[in-house]
Amino acid sequence: MEGVDHLAHERNKAQFDVEEMKIVWAGSHHAFEVSDRIARLVASDPVFAKDNRTRLDRKELFKNTLRKTAHAWKRIIELRLTEEEASRLRSFVDEPAFTDLHWGMFVPAIKGQGTEEQQKKWLPLAYKMQIIGCYAQTELGHGSNVQGLETTATFDPQTDEFVIHSPTLTSFKWWPGGLGKISTHAVVYARLITDGQDYGVNGFIVQLRSLDDHLPLPGITIGDIGMKFGNGAYNTMDNGVLKFDHVRIPRDQMLMRVSQVTRDGKYVQSNVPRQLLYGTMVYVRQTIVSDASVALSRAVCIATRYSAVRRQFGSQNGGPESQVIDYKTQQARLFPLLASAYAFRFVGEWLKWLYTDVTQRLQANDFSTLPEAHACTAGLKSLTTSATADGIEECRKLCGGHGYLCSSGLPELFAVYVPACTYEGDNIVLLLQVARHLMKTISQLQSGKKPVGTTAYMGRLGHLMQCKTDVQKAEDWLKPKAVLQAFEARAARMSVACAQNLSNFTNPEEGFHELAADLAEAAVAHCQLIVVSKFIEKLQQDIPGKGVKQQLEILCSVYALFLLHKHQGDFLSTGSITSRQSSLANDQLRTLYSQVRPNAIALVDAFNYTDHYLSSILGRYDGNVYPKLYEEAWKDPLNDSVVPDGYQQYVRPMLKQQLRNARL
Amino acid sequence: MEGVDHLAHERNKAQFDVEEMKIVWAGSHHAFEVSDRIARLVASDPVFAKDNRTRLDRKELFKNTLRKTAHAWKRIIELRLTEEEASRLRSFVDEPAFTDLHWGMFVPAIKGQGTEEQQKKWLPLAYKMQIIGCYAQTELGHGSNVQGLETTATFDPQTDEFVIHSPTLTSFKWWPGGLGKISTHAVVYARLITDGQDYGVNGFIVQLRSLDDHLPLPGITIGDIGMKFGNGAYNTMDNGVLKFDHVRIPRDQMLMRVSQVTRDGKYVQSNVPRQLLYGTMVYVRQTIVSDASVALSRAVCIATRYSAVRRQFGSQNGGPESQVIDYKTQQARLFPLLASAYAFRFVGEWLKWLYTDVTQRLQANDFSTLPEAHACTAGLKSLTTSATADGIEECRKLCGGHGYLCSSGLPELFAVYVPACTYEGDNIVLLLQVARHLMKTISQLQSGKKPVGTTAYMGRLGHLMQCKTDVQKAEDWLKPKAVLQAFEARAARMSVACAQNLSNFTNPEEGFHELAADLAEAAVAHCQLIVVSKFIEKLQQDIPGKGVKQQLEILCSVYALFLLHKHQGDFLSTGSITSRQSSLANDQLRTLYSQVRPNAIALVDAFNYTDHYLSSILGRYDGNVYPKLYEEAWKDPLNDSVVPDGYQQYVRPMLKQQLRNARL
Ligand SMILES: Cc1cc2nc3c(=O)[nH]c(=O)nc-3n(C[C@H](O)[C@H](O)[C@H](O)COP(=O)(O)OP(=O)(O)OC[C@H]3O[C@@H](n4cnc5c(N)ncnc54)[C@H](O)[C@@H]3O)c2cc1C
Ligand SMILES: Cc1cc2nc3c(=O)[nH]c(=O)nc-3n(C[C@H](O)[C@H](O)[C@H](O)COP(=O)(O)OP(=O)(O)OC[C@H]3O[C@@H](n4cnc5c(N)ncnc54)[C@H](O)[C@@H]3O)c2cc1C
Ligand SMILES: [Ca+2]
Repeated sequence: MEGVDHLAHERNKAQFDVEEMKIVWAGSHHAFEVSDRIARLVASDPVFAKDNRTRLDRKELFKNTLRKTAHAWKRIIELRLTEEEASRLRSFVDEPAFTDLHWGMFVPAIKGQGTEEQQKKWLPLAYKMQIIGCYAQTELGHGSNVQGLETTATFDPQTDEFVIHSPTLTSFKWWPGGLGKISTHAVVYARLITDGQDYGVNGFIVQLRSLDDHLPLPGITIGDIGMKFGNGAYNTMDNGVLKFDHVRIPRDQMLMRVSQVTRDGKYVQSNVPRQLLYGTMVYVRQTIVSDASVALSRAVCIATRYSAVRRQFGSQNGGPESQVIDYKTQQARLFPLLASAYAFRFVGEWLKWLYTDVTQRLQANDFSTLPEAHACTAGLKSLTTSATADGIEECRKLCGGHGYLCSSGLPELFAVYVPACTYEGDNIVLLLQVARHLMKTISQLQSGKKPVGTTAYMGRLGHLMQCKTDVQKAEDWLKPKAVLQAFEARAARMSVACAQNLSNFTNPEEGFHELAADLAEAAVAHCQLIVVSKFIEKLQQDIPGKGVKQQLEILCSVYALFLLHKHQGDFLSTGSITSRQSSLANDQLRTLYSQVRPNAIALVDAFNYTDHYLSSILGRYDGNVYPKLYEEAWKDPLNDSVVPDGYQQYVRPMLKQQLRNARL
Repeated sequence: MEGVDHLAHERNKAQFDVEEMKIVWAGSHHAFEVSDRIARLVASDPVFAKDNRTRLDRKELFKNTLRKTAHAWKRIIELRLTEEEASRLRSFVDEPAFTDLHWGMFVPAIKGQGTEEQQKKWLPLAYKMQIIGCYAQTELGHGSNVQGLETTATFDPQTDEFVIHSPTLTSFKWWPGGLGKISTHAVVYARLITDGQDYGVNGFIVQLRSLDDHLPLPGITIGDIGMKFGNGAYNTMDNGVLKFDHVRIPRDQMLMRVSQVTRDGKYVQSNVPRQLLYGTMVYVRQTIVSDASVALSRAVCIATRYSAVRRQFGSQNGGPESQVIDYKTQQARLFPLLASAYAFRFVGEWLKWLYTDVTQRLQANDFSTLPEAHACTAGLKSLTTSATADGIEECRKLCGGHGYLCSSGLPELFAVYVPACTYEGDNIVLLLQVARHLMKTISQLQSGKKPVGTTAYMGRLGHLMQCKTDVQKAEDWLKPKAVLQAFEARAARMSVACAQNLSNFTNPEEGFHELAADLAEAAVAHCQLIVVSKFIEKLQQDIPGKGVKQQLEILCSVYALFLLHKHQGDFLSTGSITSRQSSLANDQLRTLYSQVRPNAIALVDAFNYTDHYLSSILGRYDGNVYPKLYEEAWKDPLNDSVVPDGYQQYVRPMLKQQLRNARL
């Protein structure tokens, strides 16, 4: 059986050109080529093998990741990889590691918040990994509310130094990745105190460990915060705890791009606008959206392939049972997730454009679109990570019992993914930020301010508050215009309803607090509109390849109508559509699922994931699931011996009724 | 700080008698007393300590569970515990183990399917644990569809034996708990073949391992199937794989209560009705519903206590920040889960009654209520386990970053709980069974058959299809009658709509297949109605204790109105309520949350969980979270050394730019 493609008959059914779809998914020929090449490189390198992760204990697991990180760095140097290639390589190694924070947070923080001089000093060291940095913001008692951090950085004019100190237990840094065991340096966020006054939270570069013997420097206590969700998952990362006991750093290690402390202890703002800092946030969150599409598509790829392999019920005349992918409930759970993966991919692509646009405007001192861009990325981070976390778990359930085995890859994928709903902004806190922006946008309409970007539709409130969706038959729901208007009307009306309810409160803050749950729902409606509209915009472009665009049109409709069905309460209660239209949408959805069905396997093949990267027996490209599950089982350490350790001491005395005398 | 109750001010706010609520939660004074006593017994016994579970490797973890199982059995014997007490003790030890299957599946299978003679022979051995049994039904290729099992049991009239055989790889038994390393016996399900004819799936008692040396008997290959979701979680269990190579067992080890094979190989039905077997299913699923309320309430207890400890934002004039439990979004996510835990508790209690009722009827040869009882327990199993799995993960997210630490207890609780959505019937497959029953009930209305039990409301279709909910102001939603009618109308109308759509198909099976997703939604609506109505019925009883009934009334309203808001699409599209009424429900919900708020901590105290059982630092009774998180972190093996293993080999060469020469 080895070497047979059990899914060949599925692949033959596809009505589009998979190779072309791979380019669309990757974003460009170039991006595809790089990803494809680096993925194979990683997959073929034995050091990067990952099939025993869940069986290692914490120390072995961690050491193993150090080994992979070093090897990755070695290969990056040896092969003179570009920044893009290096970053793909790290992501295909597919284990959270201190390098994520070094490259993803430490370097960007210095770039974004350091002066040119500071960048000149620190970046070359970081680029060569002569120092390893982490990002130390969160404290044991303080997370979402960054302004509430307790760590202090007190300026001592006598020595021209800052004294970094942890005044309480709750002020200990807690969570920073890479901190626990590896980082030599950190960007530490602390309250700046000079001349007896507290100037709020600022960033400081602090050396943590000796470059000689790796021991924490005097006054610094560091440890790992312990096991996290899942088996391998994030336990390859040394999230750490950090306590400062009056640690001194030179004044010029304060990140001074937007504000500075002078030699004589004065706190001054530079002429660089503070808003620049938001640019970095837009960047980081855009990468999170793009990671969401990757994580979700991995899970969907596994569940789709396995659903075509798995058979259950429906055997006729002793023939094989039905593939579970043919069950309509399976399709109604799986295909919207497939569509979501594509939707998130395209909105992520668009966010990349948005980041460039914002950056260019900032350079030209144009801050007009920043609040909107900031709210939009916050909202999309929240929406896509929540949907992805739920989607991965749904994919696991779609695989029945076997999805519960680590060898399915899904438990680890879930466990390693879920913190994305929490870090870089708790998803609920972010939705409330979006809601604040929406309320502000509405209140500014009265003063004639024109809403921009993704809130532009608010400029057509007059129309949106009273328009009727023009859908008479199921196929009418395939028209982008009809879909878009329904989503705009729903979002606009939910926001306006919130704004009206808010106006009943004399204290607007109290109103916002009281109505927060409704506001969060309005924010979700707004964000879903963005994803739907960016998918539709994508389809207005030229997309080459036989049948490729048609498939994407089907997926776009699936995504939109699935949301419409799931949230039909919003659409109906705002009068954006009628009950009859809602029911037509559901009919159309069923038709769409039938259209996805023959293309499902090819649509997940288009992600171009190697078996190494998927690390899932259920998701194997060749569908050869059962023999491999069986093989894998025998590798468990419990199978080292036929009679398990503990039998003589604990089980035999039980069976032989000799427990009374046993010492346990 | 040690010994201080950080939540005392919260406990003082409670407006009801917590001790009385504990009795309501437990079900009776007696049940409370037993639970309370046994929980303390387990908590105070060092052998049952569980604080290092997530740090053990698979073999250590498994051995440790064997030790606890033996100790539990020793204590059960020493203390001469009753069956009830023994079962509580096993559940407070709180680790999946082979004993779960021995007591929960093996013994019940023999009781339910064995003849009196067979019971006499096997049960005493099982009761004394002279043999240990498991339940071997699922195969590598076959789960939900039990009729599709491939294992064969071929009668050999020459020797008066059955030959048990695994003809293919997909026929290997796969998943049975306790099988992999421990069980000496199994109830094995196999296709009975006699006289060349296949009589379908039957149960057989098969000895697997020698009682002398614990080695698998000739012809039997057994192993563990490997790591599962989570760290400790279900990895304490030896779910196994089992292959038979023509293994012979005596004829009288076929479970012969309902059908038999005679000495000369004739397959005959006994006079015991087949339906009796369904009684066992009702029993097992009833315990699953009751376990759901336990698992959900544990998670809710942790998240509620921590939400009162955790502070974030809202500091005024340098005072403390706001407790996150005061945020309305937090309440809107948490309090419905609190209400659900109570709702599931009461519907579980009612199911216990239903089981007794069904059993009595069966004994009197009255099968009239069996299909309804069977559908109802299947549906409630599906509804409560899905809601509990999602609810645990939501509780984890409600704890922000710290919920991701194993020391929060929530990751393990999730990982160990989720398979309940899959075993004992995949939740989607079960919903489709419920839908089938609903469609049958509707079609039988025409022939005048009166619907019984939880489908009785279908007898009032005439009224329910056209009634209008009488709610004019928010408080009207507090009236049980209004709520009940809205839920009945919604459920009835969704089922009728499905029935009507089905009638458009010439082939009803094809229709059922095509409309499966809608049918599953109708089934959910029906099951939610059951839970709401049983909660309301509970409140019609006398409930003593200051303020206790009032609190339960609030929770009942929260549960119902939360569902109404979540599924407002169903209610609106069926015209069961108006948009205005939906919005009033939402207003009422906000008021209810404010009423729950001061009682929240006391409402979770009423579950009476020990800190040992919760095994969560965030959920500690005394709220002393931060010092204990800090303490726990240091126990991680990574903290054994300051400089981690792997630094010299992998990190130092990187920092010193000497990687080129390093051997990795
Ligand atoms: C795997 C992982 C890696 C991490 N890596 C790093 C790192 O490298 N560096 C670093 O500095 N930090 C890191 N963190 C920390 C992370 O950034 C924080 O956990 C995150 O910001 C959330 O904050 P919190 O934990 O304080 O949650 P909390 O804010 O305490 O959230 C608890 C609950 O309160 C609610 N809540 C809070 N505020 C409000 C409000 N205003 N309105 C309504 N509800 C509210 C939340 O929605 C949530 O339900 C990491 C965390 C994790 C899990
Ligand atoms: C932790 C754990 C412990 C277990 N313990 C035992 C044990 O002790 N003994 C034992 O015998 N077994 C045990 N099992 C096995 C368990 O009973 C099965 O996994 C369960 O019955 C589900 O079957 P499956 O895995 O074949 O799922 P499948 O049926 O293969 O499900 C895969 C997908 O197909 C869908 N599907 C299947 N049929 C239909 C249909 N007709 N219509 C629509 N959709 C459908 C499902 O909804 C699911 O999404 C255990 C499993 C687990 C995870
Ligand atoms: Ca482990």
